[in-house]
Amino acid sequence: MEAVLWQCWRKLLPSQPGVLTQATRRLSSSADPALKVSTTRSTGASPLLVSRLFQPSSLREGQGQESQSGEKTCKSQRLMLQAGLIHPSNPGCYYYLPATVRAIEKLVRLIDQEMQGIGGQKLDMPSLCAAELWRRSKRWDLMGRDLFRLKDRHDAEYCLGPTHEEAITELLASQGHLSHKQLPLLLYQVTRKFRDEPRPRFGLLRGREFYMKDMYTFDTSERAAHLTYQNVCQAYTRLFARLGLQCVQVQADTGNIGGKLSHEFQLPAEVGEDRLLVCGNCAFSANVETMEPGQTDCPQCHKGTLTESKGIEVGHTFYLGTKYSHIFNATFSNPQSKPVVAEMGCFGLGVTRILAAAIEVLSTENAIHWPGLLAPYQVCILPPKRGSKEEHLEGLAEELCHSLGSTIPGLRGEVVLDDRTQLTIGRRLKDAGCLGYPYVIVVGRSAAEDLPRFEVRCQQSGETMFLSREGLMDLLSRVETI
Amino acid sequence: MEAVLWQCWRKLLPSQPGVLTQATRRLSSSADPALKVSTTRSTGASPLLVSRLFQPSSLREGQGQESQSGEKTCKSQRLMLQAGLIHPSNPGCYYYLPATVRAIEKLVRLIDQEMQGIGGQKLDMPSLCAAELWRRSKRWDLMGRDLFRLKDRHDAEYCLGPTHEEAITELLASQGHLSHKQLPLLLYQVTRKFRDEPRPRFGLLRGREFYMKDMYTFDTSERAAHLTYQNVCQAYTRLFARLGLQCVQVQADTGNIGGKLSHEFQLPAEVGEDRLLVCGNCAFSANVETMEPGQTDCPQCHKGTLTESKGIEVGHTFYLGTKYSHIFNATFSNPQSKPVVAEMGCFGLGVTRILAAAIEVLSTENAIHWPGLLAPYQVCILPPKRGSKEEHLEGLAEELCHSLGSTIPGLRGEVVLDDRTQLTIGRRLKDAGCLGYPYVIVVGRSAAEDLPRFEVRCQQSGETMFLSREGLMDLLSRVETI
Repeated sequence: MEAVLWQCWRKLLPSQPGVLTQATRRLSSSADPALKVSTTRSTGASPLLVSRLFQPSSLREGQGQESQSGEKTCKSQRLMLQAGLIHPSNPGCYYYLPATVRAIEKLVRLIDQEMQGIGGQKLDMPSLCAAELWRRSKRWDLMGRDLFRLKDRHDAEYCLGPTHEEAITELLASQGHLSHKQLPLLLYQVTRKFRDEPRPRFGLLRGREFYMKDMYTFDTSERAAHLTYQNVCQAYTRLFARLGLQCVQVQADTGNIGGKLSHEFQLPAEVGEDRLLVCGNCAFSANVETMEPGQTDCPQCHKGTLTESKGIEVGHTFYLGTKYSHIFNATFSNPQSKPVVAEMGCFGLGVTRILAAAIEVLSTENAIHWPGLLAPYQVCILPPKRGSKEEHLEGLAEELCHSLGSTIPGLRGEVVLDDRTQLTIGRRLKDAGCLGYPYVIVVGRSAAEDLPRFEVRCQQSGETMFLSREGLMDLLSRVETI
Repeated sequence: MEAVLWQCWRKLLPSQPGVLTQATRRLSSSADPALKVSTTRSTGASPLLVSRLFQPSSLREGQGQESQSGEKTCKSQRLMLQAGLIHPSNPGCYYYLPATVRAIEKLVRLIDQEMQGIGGQKLDMPSLCAAELWRRSKRWDLMGRDLFRLKDRHDAEYCLGPTHEEAITELLASQGHLSHKQLPLLLYQVTRKFRDEPRPRFGLLRGREFYMKDMYTFDTSERAAHLTYQNVCQAYTRLFARLGLQCVQVQADTGNIGGKLSHEFQLPAEVGEDRLLVCGNCAFSANVETMEPGQTDCPQCHKGTLTESKGIEVGHTFYLGTKYSHIFNATFSNPQSKPVVAEMGCFGLGVTRILAAAIEVLSTENAIHWPGLLAPYQVCILPPKRGSKEEHLEGLAEELCHSLGSTIPGLRGEVVLDDRTQLTIGRRLKDAGCLGYPYVIVVGRSAAEDLPRFEVRCQQSGETMFLSREGLMDLLSRVETI
């Protein structure tokens, strides 16, 4: 068998012995139909077919109603399981299925825009963190069983990084030539983090593996560090605004990260595990952890009453001072060429948590609503049912799918065709509603009229519109994508 | 202190109590200069300054000549350390510094294009892999000490996934509704992988943490699986061609992955750890592991002589048959609605290894040469030295930097300004040469002439050209970026 395949394979190779890659070559002249697939590039030329997407094409009825092993569930977890967005693996660990990966990648691009917009530079640190580093900061013991710990083949001890204050400070300390002119320095990464949660629950809201954006900042003085702190908080505010999420910034406990000052960005939600106190009179708001037990008067304006609500922590900011830079001797040269210990901040965003939290607060019980920017696909086109009077419009639907993807730059790769034409339009509309495409276009009866009209359902507004082709193009060319 | 900062911070908040994010707001009216940073978005409006980039601005003389702990080194490792592209952490683990992250992201976009071009769908699987899964495939014992193993707080055993055949097959087996119409199914991820190498060495060429693209394919029959195998191999061939890398595809051993057929994509290099035999007469080439000891005659054409060379393995493909799908019962429904075990393939690309291998084979001893598509920045502009006769051209250099980034879409974010004008042009040219910008533009004496000319150094061709502004725009608008 190997020999046969080998011969078969060899026929496809270029002629020069052993060397495959002389130039960018296409094998598009081949008559073998299977090879045609390989020459179709992602240029929007071939439509994305719902029947081939893994795996929302058959919504899993009944799944997600209750979880395995009696773990607590919530709306976002249930909806994401039903829609084939995630699949459970180990406790607190999920497979992120393709539509989720698209949403995560969009969120990461948004984060990149906002972090680089304030001068952030992206790096990537190892997940394996040496025990020795964490012992120097005393967190090896402090973190207790929340740390995943392991030994390598030489019996060296490591943890899987849940956060990287030690690692980044060690990196900075190793850079001999850092000048005050290079500060502020804002370094961040978007990587998988690990935390051995005692009770992982609520799907992506509290997992043991998750994606986090963590930024670490280095400044020449406390005043400069405070300005950097404000800049990052403002970038967070803009980011949540662009997602259409009404976050509250509250004063917070510094926990085992340490430092002098901290805020959380909380998304109000019943399933949230944090309790917030918000003043009815002024801008004061706080995590109850930071307040005296039973306090109901606002400590800031002394007039308003504090009302309690629940929130999901989607971001956390810390002004660290010199806690870590002192331990690891992370210094810069001041204008007099003297080494000075840098002032630090650290700033986290829960990437996968933001995704689930957004679905939690925006969705109905039966239909996912995405922040517009993060929807895995912006547009779903429904051709008529096979065997219906409008069957002849199937080609029009395909052509529309191609045309939207190729003429509106922002929609490239964003348009799918629900080719499951054995199903009624009604059934496919229901599926499309559950999956939360911002725009669903029905190519049906009204598209066969003398003045063809496309039926467009806009999830955000709840409106159904009947638009000409020009009207449709105009509407969709204004969709913001990232 | 906290209280003071709190007051200071509060002034910046919108007026509605507790709610920050009413709309996308900019605080650009603020008079505080530090806040200006926060309102500069990454629109190409503000130039990227070499003095602020972390950390190539001071090439580290002497570093990287020998490694810590006597580990073996090679050219790519030395060059990447010197240029501030990577920094060592634990043995076999590196910090990827910002320029490297840019190159990795470009490579991932290229991989996405090629994998999605043949119908690949991207997902993301947990790093923590349950021991139970690996015991079912017998690899828990087979992998020996190469696996990083750990226990969670409940004493459950896991490994850190070096590859994910078990996980993906388990996922497929859990999808009750998979139809033959959905196959072939090509699922891939680009994630960090872990392998407890006995002797990590050569920088990113053989590490213990690395990024890998791993694709897993599912087909209805052996014949269909072979066509999928060819499609993926052709996508790999195109990918390496687009990188300008002369890879050789050789027959390979299936090792502990298993299966019936396997090829490696090898990049010939002296530092390579694989030994290849290539026929001088026909297209045959093989890893020596697959051959009889001492064989020098070509087993395919029986005419040519086999010549040995060394290679770096940058990709590996396996036709697995039903090895894993049988164990985990990963089936699909055939047209008669009967369950049939799927035929599988798996296909790896070493993402961080490709990057280092490319630098290894393309670079000189003193200057990094990137595959054009992967260069972290395409263009570096050098303004004249401070205090020189041409000092007045500094504004022109800045304007050019802005103009290139904003008028040529592909160059957005790709142009840096070497603002270290305390240094001579010569010194900065030397640095730029080491870092490997494909295009370096000197705004010097000839730009001050009546017919201004920009001095353009093209690394790929080694040419120096003197171009008018129009000529420069024309040249750079043809640069391919990703």
